[in-house]
Amino acid sequence: MHKCFPARGVMEGLLSRCRALPAPTTCGRQLSGYVPHRFYHRGPERGKRLVLSRMFQPQNLREDQVLSPEGRSGDLSCKSQRLMLQVGLIHPASPGCYHLLPYTVRAIEKLERVIDQEMQAIGGQKVNMPSLSPAELWRATKRWDLMGKELLRLRDRHGKEYCLGPTHEEAITALVASQQTLSYKQLPFLLYQVTRKFRDEPRPRFGLLRGREFYMKDMYTFDSSPEAALETYGLVCGAYSSLFHRLGLQCVRVQADVGSIGGTTSHEFQLPAEVGEDRFAVCPGCGFSANMETLHSSQTSCPACRGPLTESRGIEVGHTFYLGTKYSSVFSAQFTNAHGKPCLAEMGCYGLGVTRILAAGIEVLSTEDSVRWPSLLAPYHVCLIPPKKGSREEAATELTGGLYDLITEAVPQLRGEVLLDDRTHLTIGNRLKDANKFGYPFVIIAGKRALEDPAHFEVRCQNTGEVVFLTREGVTEFLSQVQVV
Amino acid sequence: MHKCFPARGVMEGLLSRCRALPAPTTCGRQLSGYVPHRFYHRGPERGKRLVLSRMFQPQNLREDQVLSPEGRSGDLSCKSQRLMLQVGLIHPASPGCYHLLPYTVRAIEKLERVIDQEMQAIGGQKVNMPSLSPAELWRATKRWDLMGKELLRLRDRHGKEYCLGPTHEEAITALVASQQTLSYKQLPFLLYQVTRKFRDEPRPRFGLLRGREFYMKDMYTFDSSPEAALETYGLVCGAYSSLFHRLGLQCVRVQADVGSIGGTTSHEFQLPAEVGEDRFAVCPGCGFSANMETLHSSQTSCPACRGPLTESRGIEVGHTFYLGTKYSSVFSAQFTNAHGKPCLAEMGCYGLGVTRILAAGIEVLSTEDSVRWPSLLAPYHVCLIPPKKGSREEAATELTGGLYDLITEAVPQLRGEVLLDDRTHLTIGNRLKDANKFGYPFVIIAGKRALEDPAHFEVRCQNTGEVVFLTREGVTEFLSQVQVV
Repeated sequence: MHKCFPARGVMEGLLSRCRALPAPTTCGRQLSGYVPHRFYHRGPERGKRLVLSRMFQPQNLREDQVLSPEGRSGDLSCKSQRLMLQVGLIHPASPGCYHLLPYTVRAIEKLERVIDQEMQAIGGQKVNMPSLSPAELWRATKRWDLMGKELLRLRDRHGKEYCLGPTHEEAITALVASQQTLSYKQLPFLLYQVTRKFRDEPRPRFGLLRGREFYMKDMYTFDSSPEAALETYGLVCGAYSSLFHRLGLQCVRVQADVGSIGGTTSHEFQLPAEVGEDRFAVCPGCGFSANMETLHSSQTSCPACRGPLTESRGIEVGHTFYLGTKYSSVFSAQFTNAHGKPCLAEMGCYGLGVTRILAAGIEVLSTEDSVRWPSLLAPYHVCLIPPKKGSREEAATELTGGLYDLITEAVPQLRGEVLLDDRTHLTIGNRLKDANKFGYPFVIIAGKRALEDPAHFEVRCQNTGEVVFLTREGVTEFLSQVQVV
Repeated sequence: MHKCFPARGVMEGLLSRCRALPAPTTCGRQLSGYVPHRFYHRGPERGKRLVLSRMFQPQNLREDQVLSPEGRSGDLSCKSQRLMLQVGLIHPASPGCYHLLPYTVRAIEKLERVIDQEMQAIGGQKVNMPSLSPAELWRATKRWDLMGKELLRLRDRHGKEYCLGPTHEEAITALVASQQTLSYKQLPFLLYQVTRKFRDEPRPRFGLLRGREFYMKDMYTFDSSPEAALETYGLVCGAYSSLFHRLGLQCVRVQADVGSIGGTTSHEFQLPAEVGEDRFAVCPGCGFSANMETLHSSQTSCPACRGPLTESRGIEVGHTFYLGTKYSSVFSAQFTNAHGKPCLAEMGCYGLGVTRILAAGIEVLSTEDSVRWPSLLAPYHVCLIPPKKGSREEAATELTGGLYDLITEAVPQLRGEVLLDDRTHLTIGNRLKDANKFGYPFVIIAGKRALEDPAHFEVRCQNTGEVVFLTREGVTEFLSQVQVV
């Protein structure tokens, strides 16, 4: 027994008083605990099971029915857009704007968790800034005019002008500047958000790869000296590398142009892909890499080692900028240094295209007709396929339900991650075809060998194509090693 | 040993191949694992500790420095707005728009998790619809004109008209209508999202209670008959009751007007509060309750039992509508019934003000000068206060660090929930004052009794004011019962 004071009973009473703000014992709790069978399949004695037949998922469209938002099927010029429309991951709302359907929302939420982990591991603190961004902030940095038609602009009922924020350097700098007493001891601050951004693309295309409304992670850092700011810069770049590594995406960090953001140093994280709209050069000899925009058009040899350059196309999934005092000087974002004097903060800004990373991952990992996900982001990790109704294997149907319950009990991290394909009017083959299209990392089938004693289930690893037969215990032991975020 | 085939070593290899899409062993992982001491306090041998001195938190403002977004301190006419500005939970961006600072983001993310749990427990599926909502959708239901100045409107570079969605009946109905083959067997669908909404309030006020940009949970349901739709209606109302019960907020469900949303049946969930902008009547005799808007101004007795009515003010935190076919008829959202005939879907819509629930909870639970949170939503559950530097108790400083590590190891659900107030240049008393203002549910102090053998820590439950002294083991046993979402 632990030594503790006061005794256990006293402590429990104490805790229940501390925790419980007065709340009536309504029937609400019971009501919401009641889930009618029409939402989930209920096992004979166990809990709820997620079943495929209840998913809101406009899948199985014939290819010729999948149209671009502009209504022409010929515009679907990239694989991820076509596949995501086909299996019902996204649905067009207006040009460059998509509804994210349930599978995609799950994948995006997982991606946001991985991003949170990486940003918080280097000291990032999460904030959330409004989309409505007052014109005066943008006029102060002259970007109200510079950004031209890319800004979506509007007026409120009083005639006051706003834009819908595509990025938030102005807003965050004004926010930090509003802190009256900031000491060098408090710095650095690494402030980030994961929110919707808006950009009036002249020609939105490729689905989530280039939209007008999209999710972005934008981080802004505030340091007390250029040296400290560059140290922070390296730290964030390291976190980005770690993120892409965990997602299994081989990105290349290239020197980049600073564009309308400004500053003196900038890098892009490019995911090599044929459909990519960026062109970058890599020197296999010394590792130099740069966006072609930063090189002279005549340049064919590496500026560092004079070796030949290799050119690739890439999708820009991240971008980092060392800004110096470009924004802090405009808004007087200051701190007090060790000598008690006010100094301008040295800033950096760092973007990740959240919806774009998902689409880019699908673009480079998928086959021509089947979605493949970065494993960590798969909306559901496991799909269970019970036998067809009326088949010789039908006796194994209950075994499959039992396996579902066993997995969610024995492998806690897979709770909510296992889907039962209850469309038992379809053959196993037809359902396996669908599972292949959707790209669940693991598909478990109750086929002939499920009737053996002990029963063996067919486990298919869709990322490698490997197939093994495992007992119930084998399945749970195997799945207990799956990483879930 | 479990029976399993193939053997363990084979399985591990298999899994690592299944899981790992090709990824280079870059130094990214190591880089992001490296966290310099300036971000966190590092224990002598343990992991990272979250420390207060590094928080981006413009707290401790003098009361007269806290201004409304309009710049006048007299406009701060409600407690939650004043407290949230004062301790640095929100910061004004423009009238009715606020930056959410790190503590608030943590609380809102917790609230979203509770909402997800309740919505998914009744079969809700999460989607995400764009903010840019095409004018033609709103013209189809005539709401483009009906909504008047509440809609924020804009044009894109091609002159196409949009509004920023305050609600999404049109969008979701058009989305469901686009599904060609919907069978009655698939219904009901309960589709919801938690996203930013926009409403051009003529007079935004009370901080997050009535803003122009805010987070809302909106759910839309599709049923095959009016009876089924009303069953779903009851189910969602039950989930709402459960949610508020878990948050410790005593809401009243009252009959309400359908307003511009339409339909035939509607209820509001009202949180009684002096500052509330709604007025509702309750009959203590029979339980009848209704928004005053739905009653004749002369009505003073209960329409059900003729008993006297009691009037209250409330903050509307939820609203439910049974819509019938009002929207499905406009967009032809149909399903095929049991006889193979196309029928219009019966709809409901259900809103929860996410940012508003947080502010309303703070409004009704806080004291005049200290924030109190719905326990589940507290940004950090525990604040540890080590002795002042140079004090007689300073010897217990390391014990406090050790306690921090012990808690996060022994109570896994509290990882990331424990904050160390490392501002040891301040007295314990001053830091306790701050902790009281911030409303951490549990404050643990290393005072005189930390020098006893065994050391005893002072544990303060801020929601009840109770104080106990516990050993290390007592603290972890006590905290292991804290509910974290």
